[in-house]
Amino acid sequence: WRSRGKLQIFQYQVLKWALALFVGLVVALIGFFSNITVENIAGFKLLLTSNLMLQSRYMAAFVVYIGCSTALAAAAAALCAYIAPAAAGSGIPEVKAYLNGIDAHSILAPGTLLVKIVGSILGVSAGFVVGKEGPMVHIGACVASLLGQGGSRKYGLTWNWIRYFKNDLDRRDLITCGPAAGVAAAFRAPVGGVLFALEEVTSWWRSALLWRTFSTTAVVAMVLRALINYCRSGHCGLFGKGGLIMFDLSSRQATYTATDLATVMLIGILGGLLGALFNFLVDGILRVYSLLNEKGERYKIILTVTISVITSCCTFGLPWLTTCTPCPPELAGKCPTIGRSGNFKNFQCPPGHYNALASLFFNTNDDAIRNLFSAGTHGEFGVSTLLTFFTTVYTLGILTYGVAVPSGLFIPVILAGASFGRLIGTLLGSISGLDLGLFALLGAASFLGGTMRMTVSVCVILLELTNDLHLLPLIMLVLLIAKTVADCFNKGVYEQMVRMKGFPFLEVHAEPCMRSLVAGDVVSGPLVTFSSVERVGTVVETLRHTGHNGFPVIEEAPSAPAPELCGLVLRSHLLVLLQGRIFTRGRAKTSAGEVFRTLAPFDFAKAGSGKGLKVEDLDLTPEEMDMYVDLHPITNRSPYTVVENMSLAKAAGLFRVLGLRHMCVVPKTQGRSPVVGILTRHDFMPRYIRGLYPNSIPR
Amino acid sequence: WRSRGKLQIFQYQVLKWALALFVGLVVALIGFFSNITVENIAGFKLLLTSNLMLQSRYMAAFVVYIGCSTALAAAAAALCAYIAPAAAGSGIPEVKAYLNGIDAHSILAPGTLLVKIVGSILGVSAGFVVGKEGPMVHIGACVASLLGQGGSRKYGLTWNWIRYFKNDLDRRDLITCGPAAGVAAAFRAPVGGVLFALEEVTSWWRSALLWRTFSTTAVVAMVLRALINYCRSGHCGLFGKGGLIMFDLSSRQATYTATDLATVMLIGILGGLLGALFNFLVDGILRVYSLLNEKGERYKIILTVTISVITSCCTFGLPWLTTCTPCPPELAGKCPTIGRSGNFKNFQCPPGHYNALASLFFNTNDDAIRNLFSAGTHGEFGVSTLLTFFTTVYTLGILTYGVAVPSGLFIPVILAGASFGRLIGTLLGSISGLDLGLFALLGAASFLGGTMRMTVSVCVILLELTNDLHLLPLIMLVLLIAKTVADCFNKGVYEQMVRMKGFPFLEVHAEPCMRSLVAGDVVSGPLVTFSSVERVGTVVETLRHTGHNGFPVIEEAPSAPAPELCGLVLRSHLLVLLQGRIFTRGRAKTSAGEVFRTLAPFDFAKAGSGKGLKVEDLDLTPEEMDMYVDLHPITNRSPYTVVENMSLAKAAGLFRVLGLRHMCVVPKTQGRSPVVGILTRHDFMPRYIRGLYPNSIPR
Repeated sequence: WRSRGKLQIFQYQVLKWALALFVGLVVALIGFFSNITVENIAGFKLLLTSNLMLQSRYMAAFVVYIGCSTALAAAAAALCAYIAPAAAGSGIPEVKAYLNGIDAHSILAPGTLLVKIVGSILGVSAGFVVGKEGPMVHIGACVASLLGQGGSRKYGLTWNWIRYFKNDLDRRDLITCGPAAGVAAAFRAPVGGVLFALEEVTSWWRSALLWRTFSTTAVVAMVLRALINYCRSGHCGLFGKGGLIMFDLSSRQATYTATDLATVMLIGILGGLLGALFNFLVDGILRVYSLLNEKGERYKIILTVTISVITSCCTFGLPWLTTCTPCPPELAGKCPTIGRSGNFKNFQCPPGHYNALASLFFNTNDDAIRNLFSAGTHGEFGVSTLLTFFTTVYTLGILTYGVAVPSGLFIPVILAGASFGRLIGTLLGSISGLDLGLFALLGAASFLGGTMRMTVSVCVILLELTNDLHLLPLIMLVLLIAKTVADCFNKGVYEQMVRMKGFPFLEVHAEPCMRSLVAGDVVSGPLVTFSSVERVGTVVETLRHTGHNGFPVIEEAPSAPAPELCGLVLRSHLLVLLQGRIFTRGRAKTSAGEVFRTLAPFDFAKAGSGKGLKVEDLDLTPEEMDMYVDLHPITNRSPYTVVENMSLAKAAGLFRVLGLRHMCVVPKTQGRSPVVGILTRHDFMPRYIRGLYPNSIPR
Repeated sequence: WRSRGKLQIFQYQVLKWALALFVGLVVALIGFFSNITVENIAGFKLLLTSNLMLQSRYMAAFVVYIGCSTALAAAAAALCAYIAPAAAGSGIPEVKAYLNGIDAHSILAPGTLLVKIVGSILGVSAGFVVGKEGPMVHIGACVASLLGQGGSRKYGLTWNWIRYFKNDLDRRDLITCGPAAGVAAAFRAPVGGVLFALEEVTSWWRSALLWRTFSTTAVVAMVLRALINYCRSGHCGLFGKGGLIMFDLSSRQATYTATDLATVMLIGILGGLLGALFNFLVDGILRVYSLLNEKGERYKIILTVTISVITSCCTFGLPWLTTCTPCPPELAGKCPTIGRSGNFKNFQCPPGHYNALASLFFNTNDDAIRNLFSAGTHGEFGVSTLLTFFTTVYTLGILTYGVAVPSGLFIPVILAGASFGRLIGTLLGSISGLDLGLFALLGAASFLGGTMRMTVSVCVILLELTNDLHLLPLIMLVLLIAKTVADCFNKGVYEQMVRMKGFPFLEVHAEPCMRSLVAGDVVSGPLVTFSSVERVGTVVETLRHTGHNGFPVIEEAPSAPAPELCGLVLRSHLLVLLQGRIFTRGRAKTSAGEVFRTLAPFDFAKAGSGKGLKVEDLDLTPEEMDMYVDLHPITNRSPYTVVENMSLAKAAGLFRVLGLRHMCVVPKTQGRSPVVGILTRHDFMPRYIRGLYPNSIPR
């Protein structure tokens, strides 16, 4: 069914582009909506508390603050625990695994999408040290997946054209656009989004994708811009200019000296070390939490509420430790800030003074970052303030990730990094002339490089956030150093999580242990093959009793002089063929034409997740079970094969680069069975191989 | 020789990074040097002419102007024609072909590098409508190639560590860093450079490369910045701020209306059309020129000088047609410009007036672009001025590309696009409120999208040039439209040239004609195989009489029951083995240990281009010719194989995605010779396949 008419090709092309652009539109709308909602809920919470503070009713303020936060946190946790457990966490590892070819259950289901959106809004509003950027990536992938399936069949939202998209390749391509759109919407960084998808998320990349993801993110950028312009005129409640993060740093500092460079390198090294430590601790805390979370949904909620209370206590309690700072006289109009967002929070201080710690803690995360990045504000935050904030955020960031709430890592890492950078800048102020806002930016870059180990995409995202290209060389330098340092200790945080969740992820580089093995060594278990014309009963029985998804088809005696490999047949195609009931009494070939008179080519298209035929759905009479079915029309006649003595590492490379699900292993010498075995993704997992050869292979 | 010690791995890693960073350093220095030289030579030429003009000695000025230009052009053409013909043109198609796996002669030779640098400086100074950006890409690749070979062996500049780099993969990776560094140096666009390498130049991409090219371009950015700061203090002759293009547009135009968007779309559509036309005409003119150029070096020089004279006449003559414009009173200090660069050229006009056309023509190309991009200068250029300039530049751009001078296409396309955009902006000024400088930028984007068909990289390069992220959505929109429109007509200009130069380029998508063929169909010619232990004379004779580079090795009767495929052996490895003279009297196996006692593994490493052993270099006695050589130690035991009935399109995909040079075709049925044939790159060329099956396959 490869030969399509011109009209079909045109439909396909139009659909491909329309879907890509539509993904951009939907993701932009969701991103905007979630931003507005967070700003309004969090803003309302802070406003309520601030008003009580102004009346000096501190205890009431604390109760309101902690009550709101806990309620929001509990709601988010309940959603995640009971409705869609897959929505907890960042979602980036799951999307990464999916694009590596792992169809894990319910990762991209409609329920997950819904909980992810609502849960992320609630979680961020609850004041957790989490971001909505990671979840946006997952949301983007979910939206793309649902659109690619033509909505949900359950709700009758199918469209006939969509059938062109029911295959792995097109679906994967479309789902690649999703994360790009998500990052573009979260950071307003369209180029950064494309690079993020390229660098961090996808396992296969074609240059055609660059072009398509780019147009998706262009749509996101344009839609967001239009909506923000609309909101500027005050239609969006408490939603201010600051809603979608875009930090206009614009320090325009064109020169720097050798001392400055040394400081920058120091930030890179320390950022790399602290980033690696962060990864290590997050890994540990996730293991502890997973023990708790396994005990049941109730424990998940309790854990979340506990962390929420700790967070609220920190953010409300710590500012009391610091003394009030008098407002700088030249900023009399702006300090202290009376409204919701701003650099100088009054908190418990008398008029004309501000509380530096409260300006960071008692704010949304976006505003705190903006305060840290702000240029030309040298004396605003003291060493002790920054140190307290950095320690708290670093610890809370580690503790919070892993609770049952959609939680992104970008914001905690940027917050910790920015306060760290500003701290270093304040300490070294005497020997370096760089602005403290720039220090904060470089600190954020070093932490991002140290934890996520992305380079180009983080660099571009930061540039798009700050809108100042003059900083490029410094950011690049910091990122390079931080990543290099951190790579000495452990892997990036997302890779670590992919591994911890046990996804059978195909790495780019084969493990060293594969070098000394050949493909034939890992083939195991009884090989199940079909004859090219097979008894229906045999097929059904086999499908019932094995979980395999691909079966080699062997051409046997009457039609070939010796048994030879005819091809590979997939479980899903077999089921459709059996359902079609094109059987013959004896072993006879059926012409392809006859099959396709009964079944349309699109009946063989890949169904949405969890929607394909199952062997239990077949309802064949005993008489039919005794008939024969010709597998030729549905056999893939040229499967990829490797000779059994090919190096396993080489076979793994081939498997990965072609994005296969099955690979036939053929014998080296003639006169044996024409196929020795089938390799699947699981046969390349290092753990499995070490299990087979525990002694011979050094770890 | 896969098992390396820890020290060797460390040496390899250090070397890999050191080379990548060193490429950045060298390319940045070359880029900076060529910029300074161009600015000084061209500046001196313009200064001389301007001074004569001020004295009203117009005829003398013309003679000086045309004389300088022609001399420079003739020098550049002579260099290209006699010393390194490969240095003519942009070089991007050649680099692209090289990274596709085509080792074309002398593309990356030291001579080519030298001529490219000097020729590009001379060509740009001569006033041709060419850029130095394309050549910088080629220069970057040459530098990377030479460094990767450890300098030139001819001049004794080898280094022992470099031997780790003598293989295709590492060399290709390093050469990928070159073009990225070239773009980064030419445009001061480090992120754009990485994306350019990714999108336009490479055929294979691994995510490790993103990281390495990124660090290369980071070095470029930092070195350039340091050098420019040094030059700001006036150490670089006439070299001004404008040397390395960076157009600070910064219009900060945050809002636009629906009418503006419609105008922008119009620019995109027209840009796409004109871009496609440009490609079509360039293709035609290159065919005409190649007929001329084939006649000999002298014709090349004559052609170049002719075009140079035409260019000089246009740039000097056309400004006379326009009338003088009085300077706007608010710019009395800046108009007319007395010095070299500036918006308002006096030319033949009385004091207090400026000649608009001369401000564009009578300038270096970089300054002309800067004038066109300049914001807030509404009345500066009239419709007729812009129309004249656009037509001339568009025509000259087409005529100039293809003469024997290193010539980049970026600058002509940007010049034509910017004047086109400004023209549209001036015409539609009444209905659109966008700035004319922004119109020029969008016009340039549309032309770049229409000719080169790059998207993300052009977008990022333009952003880095103009340093204003607010323009991103508009640029993206224009690029998308222009590329889509132009793709309806023809291919991108670089792909077109790759095809015209007859490189056997492996496309990503297989041609439709391959769908109906199988791998066995295109295997042709007598298959040359070796026995696993072969007579030396036979090997030498075979190597002498065939041009093949890979030979299947067949295990025969004594060691195997039936002939079976043992592996694949390469010509270069055979030659090294023969040179080593490890022969036996009878058909006996030699142990690998014995071979590697005589020959070090690195003797088999790939030599630099044109430096490998040749079969004529072998000097074997007749007695030795009668002895036997065991090919096992140098045979690749697991070559990639396909079954003869695999679809040719699928085989082509496999060949391309794995980056192979040889692929063995094995028979489907048993009992035949164990290998049917070998597929090489040439067997997948559409032209070759059409030659084999002229009738059966529709074009």
